[in-house]
Amino acid sequence: MKTKIKKLIMEGQDFLVTTHIDPDGDAIGSAFAFAFALRSLGKKATVYFNDQVPYRYEFLPGPQITHTMPHGMYDAVFVLDCGSLFRIGKGHEGAALLKPLVNIDHHDTNDLFGTVNLVDKKASSTGEIIYRLLKYLKITIDKNMAENIYTAVFTDTGSLRYENTSLSAYRVCEEMVKAGANPSQIAMMIYENHPKERYLLLGEVLRTLATYNGTVAIAHVTGDMFEKTGTNSEFVDGFVEFIKEIRGIEVAVLMRELDKDLYKISMRGKGTIDVAAICNMFGGGGHRNAAGCRIEGTIEETRRKLLDALCAGQ
Amino acid sequence: MKTKIKKLIMEGQDFLVTTHIDPDGDAIGSAFAFAFALRSLGKKATVYFNDQVPYRYEFLPGPQITHTMPHGMYDAVFVLDCGSLFRIGKGHEGAALLKPLVNIDHHDTNDLFGTVNLVDKKASSTGEIIYRLLKYLKITIDKNMAENIYTAVFTDTGSLRYENTSLSAYRVCEEMVKAGANPSQIAMMIYENHPKERYLLLGEVLRTLATYNGTVAIAHVTGDMFEKTGTNSEFVDGFVEFIKEIRGIEVAVLMRELDKDLYKISMRGKGTIDVAAICNMFGGGGHRNAAGCRIEGTIEETRRKLLDALCAGQ
Repeated sequence: MKTKIKKLIMEGQDFLVTTHIDPDGDAIGSAFAFAFALRSLGKKATVYFNDQVPYRYEFLPGPQITHTMPHGMYDAVFVLDCGSLFRIGKGHEGAALLKPLVNIDHHDTNDLFGTVNLVDKKASSTGEIIYRLLKYLKITIDKNMAENIYTAVFTDTGSLRYENTSLSAYRVCEEMVKAGANPSQIAMMIYENHPKERYLLLGEVLRTLATYNGTVAIAHVTGDMFEKTGTNSEFVDGFVEFIKEIRGIEVAVLMRELDKDLYKISMRGKGTIDVAAICNMFGGGGHRNAAGCRIEGTIEETRRKLLDALCAGQ
Repeated sequence: MKTKIKKLIMEGQDFLVTTHIDPDGDAIGSAFAFAFALRSLGKKATVYFNDQVPYRYEFLPGPQITHTMPHGMYDAVFVLDCGSLFRIGKGHEGAALLKPLVNIDHHDTNDLFGTVNLVDKKASSTGEIIYRLLKYLKITIDKNMAENIYTAVFTDTGSLRYENTSLSAYRVCEEMVKAGANPSQIAMMIYENHPKERYLLLGEVLRTLATYNGTVAIAHVTGDMFEKTGTNSEFVDGFVEFIKEIRGIEVAVLMRELDKDLYKISMRGKGTIDVAAICNMFGGGGHRNAAGCRIEGTIEETRRKLLDALCAGQ
């Protein structure tokens, strides 16, 4: 696959680079690093993101981003960190028409939608695959690329804490530090950059925290809490992961009030229970350790439905 | 220094290994790894800790620990991760009489109290120095040692996020993973192992959070909160670091009620303000980025004194 990609890049001139909706550190870092790499070869790289870059990643050196799917002709379209093409967002029908379509990804669920597929399900992150691709293409990794690749690998391994933390994840981070990435500065930008209001909201949410059987933790957030703390749904990012850190917890749940008697459920597991299967029961989905769904009912009814499903699922 | 230490170890048989009060991951990991290493050479290693191992480090493979300073004669006493000898706790006068006294540490403030001093202020952690010492001694690092050294380096760099995150910190972690340390299992034990009550207490504390001038964050915890949530002062570990993550904050403060009109102050900085200098004004002390003191007064008076001192200090 790498030889095909090399040929496309060397023979082409004008490329499109994109990634998934609600982009995370791996999506953004991979796309930015790859766009910089293409430009370092004297090529043109247009970057399309469906959504804005979240505030915690605004520090990353990056190219201009377009949020409207371009309709031009490209010598290749690179889709990074997407398991399926629809994940790029509202431009995905258009992208399907653009050939060659290069799919570079590490997700287990990747459906090989590309005309060229560089998919390594064992890679810690798409950033790691991009790193290896740049080495293969003999591209010199400069500071801008290094900061992006470092961020991709570091964030997608949960700062080298998740199960995908491989030896090669360490090695790529180490190489990126050598190439100019500053670990403490990057960590400060990503992890010490939350608005105060997030903490006030967390304070409200933690007061609702309850555990069941020592293995399930449930908290909820309401519209009143958003109003009281001057926040909105963006601020709950990371809350469910946070309560998953309670000792002995196998499933963590955050219930977010969407409307009267309608809750959005975010569920996280630690490998023992397939939370996607639980969320499927309510018409939702996701991955084994991270899934979501919507449930109608009062807060008490919703909590009861969840607990019943979790009992049945165990 | 390493040649002297090698001679002591090779010629001796019976050693004492100790570290500082309120031991953290670097203290425990370094002491355990070093004791295992001595034993792997067929030597006897007694381990003395003033305090208990905190719950988050109970998973580490370790030797038996004595909490009473032994009075026997040793061929050498190894004091790890202590800037000064008094840091080992109540046995320090006795330890001063025991010779040779080997001081292995990385703190900036180390006062070279040993008869042999292996002090590297540029090392990320004492764990890293122990790693290099074991390599020098040609000791095979087994899984037990690897888990301890990994924990020492990983925790003392704030999971590879602090300014002391050097290239060598990455390399040591990588080597320890190769030697059998499992990063995700260790991270889960350390970072996902908090009692539920800690989160309930954090919820109470976050409701007191206020920021001043966008650069100072202050929260407080009272005896009533401990009572309401079934917690005690041990549960506030990490709270002040947590509020330091607010965007733009240069100084984070947690005020803990010790008694009526008496507060223990924990202060953390990000390098721009010397928080030890602030705490010195109140008879406390610490390091540039982490310090503490006690202040008498009502909660409002205490907060006002702190803010005045911080204004004067800026």
